[in-house]
Amino acid sequence: MDAKPLNKKRCWKPGTMIYPLPAVLVTCGQSVGESNMLTVAWVGTVNTDPAMCYISVRPERHSYDIIKRQMEFTINLTTADMARQTDWAGVRSGKEYDKWKETGLTPVPGVAVSCPYIDESPLSIECKVSAVVPLGSHHMFLAKVINVLADEQYIDSATDSFDLGKAGLMNYTHGHYYSQGEELGRFGFSVKKPRKG
Amino acid sequence: MDAKPLNKKRCWKPGTMIYPLPAVLVTCGQSVGESNMLTVAWVGTVNTDPAMCYISVRPERHSYDIIKRQMEFTINLTTADMARQTDWAGVRSGKEYDKWKETGLTPVPGVAVSCPYIDESPLSIECKVSAVVPLGSHHMFLAKVINVLADEQYIDSATDSFDLGKAGLMNYTHGHYYSQGEELGRFGFSVKKPRKG
Repeated sequence: MDAKPLNKKRCWKPGTMIYPLPAVLVTCGQSVGESNMLTVAWVGTVNTDPAMCYISVRPERHSYDIIKRQMEFTINLTTADMARQTDWAGVRSGKEYDKWKETGLTPVPGVAVSCPYIDESPLSIECKVSAVVPLGSHHMFLAKVINVLADEQYIDSATDSFDLGKAGLMNYTHGHYYSQGEELGRFGFSVKKPRKG
Repeated sequence: MDAKPLNKKRCWKPGTMIYPLPAVLVTCGQSVGESNMLTVAWVGTVNTDPAMCYISVRPERHSYDIIKRQMEFTINLTTADMARQTDWAGVRSGKEYDKWKETGLTPVPGVAVSCPYIDESPLSIECKVSAVVPLGSHHMFLAKVINVLADEQYIDSATDSFDLGKAGLMNYTHGHYYSQGEELGRFGFSVKKPRKG
């Protein structure tokens, strides 16, 4: 019997190595005129019911004060087509640039929050902050999801289901952006009995 | 001038729609014998310095009590090759199965925590819980990263850098698992000047 070749592991410096992550564009501000966007990978879901999420932001970032004052933000998912704009919004500051103008992305007035959302994003998630948790370099904004804006083109009108897999989302892995690859299976596929032919 | 075709957005029910996410295998337990693994997508980085992360777990899951008692866990990143095992560990419960035996994954005693890590994982992240935050369906375990175990085969010995992009990580997007696609760019690529030829 062949022995399975096992990994040889080395202790590495403690760091932020959980990947792949979404690189979302967070929008904030009371109106399109005073709004900003920033790129965030320290983002995720923390609770299913009620739907809650978080973003972690450095206090020195231009959007930090806006979000803390407004206690609202919108998470806009990003696609491979938006990679350059997403990277740019993460490198540059809203203190120096009008990011809407520079990226060419289109602001649309929010529905359940005042922040505008990004029209080019396949899905925008409107959030209200429930707690701000200082952790060190970053402060975590814990938030409730109060509305989701979904691009009609990914909604199957027959089943009224949303197919996010078709949106071509990109991911961020340890300093690099990647497109979505091939589908490996659907949740639960490992226990599904094959259909009789 | 051509008008850019804009998305038509529809309000969708508030839900947990932040994707793509990692689907990690979390290991817990004081020893290999009493350890368990569970699949978690509600996972992410919350702070860079010090390195901190979270996992959110339903209190009724078998591993919840183990983690709460031990206040330690290990996050094992998963690859496309591990998709079936990852899905299985997310669908089945450690109350009924020995997940190591059933998945064939190999436990290795931890280094900085008591929990064993998964040898087949390209990167394992050892964590100590600093707070348990009840949110609703899930409780969030906020934790400090205290050690990282990196597969030697992804370490470039010349530069002593770790190339996680080569590991073939998978992601989880709204009920489906996907492999990693092509590289779209490196962080900062949007502002880099082209080299002179």
